Amino acid sequence: MCRWAAYLGDAIFLEDVIAAPSHSLIVQSHGAKEAKSPISADGFGVAWYGDRPEPGLYRDVLPAWSDTNLRSLGRQIKSGMFLAHVRASTGGATSRANCHPFVSGRWSFMHNGQIGGFEKIRRALENSLSDTLFDQVEGSTDSELFFQLMIGEGLAQDPLGAVSRATSRVLDAARRAGIEPSLKLTAAFSDGRALHAVRYATDEHAPTLYTGAFAKGVGRCIVSEPFDRDGRTWHEIPQSSFVTMTRDSTSIKPFAPAAVQLALAG
Amino acid sequence: MCRWAAYLGDAIFLEDVIAAPSHSLIVQSHGAKEAKSPISADGFGVAWYGDRPEPGLYRDVLPAWSDTNLRSLGRQIKSGMFLAHVRASTGGATSRANCHPFVSGRWSFMHNGQIGGFEKIRRALENSLSDTLFDQVEGSTDSELFFQLMIGEGLAQDPLGAVSRATSRVLDAARRAGIEPSLKLTAAFSDGRALHAVRYATDEHAPTLYTGAFAKGVGRCIVSEPFDRDGRTWHEIPQSSFVTMTRDSTSIKPFAPAAVQLALAG
Amino acid sequence: MCRWAAYLGDAIFLEDVIAAPSHSLIVQSHGAKEAKSPISADGFGVAWYGDRPEPGLYRDVLPAWSDTNLRSLGRQIKSGMFLAHVRASTGGATSRANCHPFVSGRWSFMHNGQIGGFEKIRRALENSLSDTLFDQVEGSTDSELFFQLMIGEGLAQDPLGAVSRATSRVLDAARRAGIEPSLKLTAAFSDGRALHAVRYATDEHAPTLYTGAFAKGVGRCIVSEPFDRDGRTWHEIPQSSFVTMTRDSTSIKPFAPAAVQLALAG
Amino acid sequence: MCRWAAYLGDAIFLEDVIAAPSHSLIVQSHGAKEAKSPISADGFGVAWYGDRPEPGLYRDVLPAWSDTNLRSLGRQIKSGMFLAHVRASTGGATSRANCHPFVSGRWSFMHNGQIGGFEKIRRALENSLSDTLFDQVEGSTDSELFFQLMIGEGLAQDPLGAVSRATSRVLDAARRAGIEPSLKLTAAFSDGRALHAVRYATDEHAPTLYTGAFAKGVGRCIVSEPFDRDGRTWHEIPQSSFVTMTRDSTSIKPFAPAAVQLALAG
Repeated sequence: MCRWAAYLGDAIFLEDVIAAPSHSLIVQSHGAKEAKSPISADGFGVAWYGDRPEPGLYRDVLPAWSDTNLRSLGRQIKSGMFLAHVRASTGGATSRANCHPFVSGRWSFMHNGQIGGFEKIRRALENSLSDTLFDQVEGSTDSELFFQLMIGEGLAQDPLGAVSRATSRVLDAARRAGIEPSLKLTAAFSDGRALHAVRYATDEHAPTLYTGAFAKGVGRCIVSEPFDRDGRTWHEIPQSSFVTMTRDSTSIKPFAPAAVQLALAG
Repeated sequence: MCRWAAYLGDAIFLEDVIAAPSHSLIVQSHGAKEAKSPISADGFGVAWYGDRPEPGLYRDVLPAWSDTNLRSLGRQIKSGMFLAHVRASTGGATSRANCHPFVSGRWSFMHNGQIGGFEKIRRALENSLSDTLFDQVEGSTDSELFFQLMIGEGLAQDPLGAVSRATSRVLDAARRAGIEPSLKLTAAFSDGRALHAVRYATDEHAPTLYTGAFAKGVGRCIVSEPFDRDGRTWHEIPQSSFVTMTRDSTSIKPFAPAAVQLALAG
Repeated sequence: MCRWAAYLGDAIFLEDVIAAPSHSLIVQSHGAKEAKSPISADGFGVAWYGDRPEPGLYRDVLPAWSDTNLRSLGRQIKSGMFLAHVRASTGGATSRANCHPFVSGRWSFMHNGQIGGFEKIRRALENSLSDTLFDQVEGSTDSELFFQLMIGEGLAQDPLGAVSRATSRVLDAARRAGIEPSLKLTAAFSDGRALHAVRYATDEHAPTLYTGAFAKGVGRCIVSEPFDRDGRTWHEIPQSSFVTMTRDSTSIKPFAPAAVQLALAG
Repeated sequence: MCRWAAYLGDAIFLEDVIAAPSHSLIVQSHGAKEAKSPISADGFGVAWYGDRPEPGLYRDVLPAWSDTNLRSLGRQIKSGMFLAHVRASTGGATSRANCHPFVSGRWSFMHNGQIGGFEKIRRALENSLSDTLFDQVEGSTDSELFFQLMIGEGLAQDPLGAVSRATSRVLDAARRAGIEPSLKLTAAFSDGRALHAVRYATDEHAPTLYTGAFAKGVGRCIVSEPFDRDGRTWHEIPQSSFVTMTRDSTSIKPFAPAAVQLALAG
């Protein structure tokens, strides 16, 4: 189980989310409270939006708690939109290319969860990518591939729809491979303007997702688990939800795999 | 709290201790049972004796569980004497030079524990080293410095005495700095012929130490905590003990800081 | 341009090839004489055969000259058959998974050269792999993919034929993609018993390849460029050759892409 | 021989110096023109000033040309004052703590050159540090130690004097150790307001130093060697000079070791 946190609002130092809170993302990397395993020490990453439309990206393979560069970058870089992640591998090697967030053009993406039976359907999913998207894959994780599926499904035009259709493709691929569809998907992604998140699973146990105010009027967060309880209110987002956060609003919509809803229910 | 395991006997694959047992050292790196913290993910290392009098050394900064090189080396290298360690930093940076075991000539050394108030006495201890030993220090840990103190106290001629005197020097340095002497020292070290271990602390809670047979007639181990319960018998070594293991025998002697025993008891 | 060296003979320390000679592989990593670029600092690796049929593998991303683990392993490990490589990337990221040698079962493989236009034919080549071989691909290099093609073409049964057919597949894929076939292939590979090497290019400039005695009666080497001139005789292997070295003999045969020889000549 | 570049002026992207120019610092890391060796691949670093008085710091051990994080940070981070360095080790291990720039409070420092016979005088120099400065030393390089000597000599109050006195202490230490004083010192350092550089050597061959305009009115640079010739004018700074650059002016003063000038001339 990975842990992640995303921020949208006035520019703050990255460390204000990553390192400073009492139950910061770095603390969660060795002491998560709402994850199956308390440890997410297989690398980390942060994508932040600044002067360019494309985000900056810093990822490395050490546990987040011991990376001196992360500490310094967190103290120095201010951003009004960033995604930060600490990784607990569900299979892929510990390498920079397998660390979240993944970036493609303006988009960044990070994930907590797993595509069940990924090794059995990876090739079919990869084959379904366009040449352009295929060439963008750098690592070997299910998460990065899901991100490419989302892009292929029109992420830029229709975020909710794209995730919904990508989900269906994963479930379909499992069925075609003769295995039980299994997906845990608690993910966040952004194009630098809006911040989106999804909480979904094929069973009843989608990884947790919370929203909360960062500080009165300053900004808001979407997180795997609350990073403090210092008077802050956190809202648990129910399973099968899609969250979209902008500077002015937070919307929560129901989420389900596209098209195959009936089939799943049947 | 770090975890470590040492082996002496017929040549076996390193993985037979590091990776294969049900509660192997790699499992202990994320799920230790008898340590304050279950996680030792700030690097790892192994020193093994082979065709040369000096040991080979492989250390790196990733968690032991995700290092592909360690897995391959463990499968390939056979040795009749090796020391393996997974690190939980008590302060020093995560770097190769701070990973145990430390090696000097024929000697290797690894440690679980801590010199209390090290930042206040480090300089005095370092100043007490000979020029030759001073030049050998590569990292910034209390453990490596303790090893150099042991060498300076005549490790090669009198292992028990050398550790005893090094311990006294640490306690003395603390007193001179006006701080309460505090040391936790559960360590193993070898010159490639005999395997030594010490369990000591200035309080009642020295980190655990066990000995056990590896397999009937094949070899024996000294470990932080047992790596399996598969019919193997493990003996907990009492606090304030010094263990010396050779191919033919295991001796356990009382251990106390040199010279200042009375002062401590007073 | 990468540099590599392979050894077959009585067991010697790895460092006897990697580090000790005046123009050792480590020296070549920053001062190669017969390569386009003198620098091969994008990682390194060594595969060696010992007590198991499968080789050990140590690869890392630092320049070979600054890796302390490599130095220690080279001093400690003895082997009668090993392959060592220093990498100069022609495109792929600097990651462990992209470092040579690559290992599959008993086989190890390392390469100096390049598949021209790889990004345009990578997908087609990958699609041509069986599911089993596809799942074995860990990195993103042309070299690793070529190795998988060789395995798919029956490397275990017919090494020369397998390389020859794999070469044809690469050239074919280029033609189908509408690009000029371009391949530089100076590679070595082994199953732990025989040591094979190939020197081939689609133009007149295949990277260099030499064989030489290691020391009177002790062993023999196949290398990118000689690692010393200390009374040793080195034989330059002509382009379009396939070398097979066993404990008792060295054979050199002509090499050409399978089946499409005429087409290429036409 | 290391290579470095420092910038002062309007905020620009780090990559405008590090990666974009035709002979950028990254190009210099494998193809320097005015250094003894063309390769500086033993790590790299960048310190930049932003919203805080203390600089941010990113250092890592890979060659600068292959670090994907450096590329992304360079594209994303803007700064009006930064120091960037690619390292060619003259002895110290390849570790983050040995990479330049070094940072202490508001000050950053980077160096091209060497303290001759450092291993013979290191301990004496270290002993001369105050406890506070001694505790700040993280790595094992002559450069970092020289920086601490500068701080001890009053860097904050009198930059030129501090460097001059630190230089004398190094030369003195050599004489006391009975070795020929030998120092090559082409270094840059800053407190975030002014940018200083020194070019000095005990022989006639101080490593090169240049100043130049970044772009008309935008900013200015101090560099080891020019990073392009695109219509830019570069001024070679003569040996035994001390440069101080502010937003409004560049001053060049003669530089000599403090106090012992006569002794050196005698």
